[in-house]
Amino acid sequence: MKTSSGKFLKIVALAGGVGGAKLAYGLLHSSISNELTVIVNTGDDLQFCGLYVSPDLDTMVYNLAGLSNPGKGWGRINDTFFALNVCGQLGGPEWFKIGDKDLGMHLERTRQLILGKTLSDITSSFCKQLGIKASILPMTNDKVSTIIETSQHEMLPFQEYFVHRNCEPKISTIHFQGIEKAAIVPEALEAINDSDLIIICPSNPWVSIDPILNLKGMRSALYGKYVLAVSPIIQGKTIKGPAAKMFNEMGIIPTATAVTLHYQGLIKSFILDLKDKKEITTIEKLGIKCFAANTIMNTDSQKIFLAEKIINFANKNFS
Amino acid sequence: MKTSSGKFLKIVALAGGVGGAKLAYGLLHSSISNELTVIVNTGDDLQFCGLYVSPDLDTMVYNLAGLSNPGKGWGRINDTFFALNVCGQLGGPEWFKIGDKDLGMHLERTRQLILGKTLSDITSSFCKQLGIKASILPMTNDKVSTIIETSQHEMLPFQEYFVHRNCEPKISTIHFQGIEKAAIVPEALEAINDSDLIIICPSNPWVSIDPILNLKGMRSALYGKYVLAVSPIIQGKTIKGPAAKMFNEMGIIPTATAVTLHYQGLIKSFILDLKDKKEITTIEKLGIKCFAANTIMNTDSQKIFLAEKIINFANKNFS
Repeated sequence: MKTSSGKFLKIVALAGGVGGAKLAYGLLHSSISNELTVIVNTGDDLQFCGLYVSPDLDTMVYNLAGLSNPGKGWGRINDTFFALNVCGQLGGPEWFKIGDKDLGMHLERTRQLILGKTLSDITSSFCKQLGIKASILPMTNDKVSTIIETSQHEMLPFQEYFVHRNCEPKISTIHFQGIEKAAIVPEALEAINDSDLIIICPSNPWVSIDPILNLKGMRSALYGKYVLAVSPIIQGKTIKGPAAKMFNEMGIIPTATAVTLHYQGLIKSFILDLKDKKEITTIEKLGIKCFAANTIMNTDSQKIFLAEKIINFANKNFS
Repeated sequence: MKTSSGKFLKIVALAGGVGGAKLAYGLLHSSISNELTVIVNTGDDLQFCGLYVSPDLDTMVYNLAGLSNPGKGWGRINDTFFALNVCGQLGGPEWFKIGDKDLGMHLERTRQLILGKTLSDITSSFCKQLGIKASILPMTNDKVSTIIETSQHEMLPFQEYFVHRNCEPKISTIHFQGIEKAAIVPEALEAINDSDLIIICPSNPWVSIDPILNLKGMRSALYGKYVLAVSPIIQGKTIKGPAAKMFNEMGIIPTATAVTLHYQGLIKSFILDLKDKKEITTIEKLGIKCFAANTIMNTDSQKIFLAEKIINFANKNFS
């Protein structure tokens, strides 16, 4: 079916890993026809034993291909860990849990990168091979590295902070190394330009969405577009990941309102969880249209339900 | 036990992959005490999707660790191929049969190479982790690439010729790219210097042993040493690999005698297969002491039996 206005929607989602991938899954499988482009954070990308790994991109690909590990939200379903176990026995790192099937994708991506193909072309070819009916784009083909500067002045690459150190060090500053020189993937700019609706997924504002927004030209590309954000904070907490902890360490109480303030000037609408609906009045005073829904997406039908709520809400509020 | 002369033997074996690894296994498990160093060809090394793979070194490590696939002689026993299958599904190469456990070793080796460790140090650390009681050394830590120039003037990296093209193209010339600048691993030179016996394993003379012998300083290091070679040719054929075909394409009839001529000036003794014992007289006329034994090593006891025959024969003939 089309939207109530009969319009076929072109949607662009900005996303990080697990939370973003859940909503993207809902949008892709929504009964309201839409053409979906997902622009994914690559600030967490890393070299693992010589292989190029893109955690958020991989999570998005596996989720939209129906291959993701439903328990964890990342990695592949029914994967094995023979390679990683041997690597560990020989003295290598075991903290970054790459399965054997997962490795297969990293091998082929690395091979194609060595041949000179771009990350966006490679991702597009993988999406085709895996039958994904959405366009998944890395935010950039250039190197951007999210570095967490801790209160102890350590400089930790994001996955080192996130996975190896279990988000325990206290954050002082977040750096996006290389962002000044990184170009937005051209297909992403085109998709934004053509879009009817931009959705900022319930991803971490600090380390999943900010790298995308801070790319040169991104804010001006989004200017004038109908941008809507979905809160990753529910009652002061996150479903997964350190967003709430980061707000606290930045001296901000983690609330849905704090998220809207983070995106102020950029978003026209905001979706918060039903449990936070008392914040609607405060947020609407900021000139942001606000709507409460169940934002917890444990099941596929919850993902689709939320996606359809968002589309219908946005559709009613298009200016 | 010690040798009949009561001497504790220091043996250095020069080897390629499968055939060399079988004899090295026999030497390592021989009841005649010996200290074994194996110097392995690295001319076949390749980059596979960003990972550093060293086929002959890997075969040697797996065989001496008791982990090799007994059916094939290379690769690991009970390995799975999940990563390679995914890599193939996404458009990648599937002809180079790397299993998941095998990949684990390549991952860790690549990680350590990126950290700046040498191939010889990494191999030594793997041998320790795997409980291998022999010293396995790559011939060099520098890049040497065996390139097969075909009669059609194609230039094929060895594994491309050997695995992907199934040794089918006719050879015109064999190149060892980079060999002029490659240094012998220092531990290999020390082991040769200290050795009582050098054994050239029943490996391919053209592409497994020649890269080792052609390293700058290798022939002079071997000069004056007791060097013995084991024929890889049995009744004009090889157990595995293209050595016989290569002799033919070089215009030489593949015989045990042809192998001794290939090594003439370098070896003092030669072991050929019982089936070729009629060649003994011809070979001894070249001033090379010759001995016939069963050189087919299908079982571990055959490997050990041949190794002991060789040690005892060499021991009797030490000048």
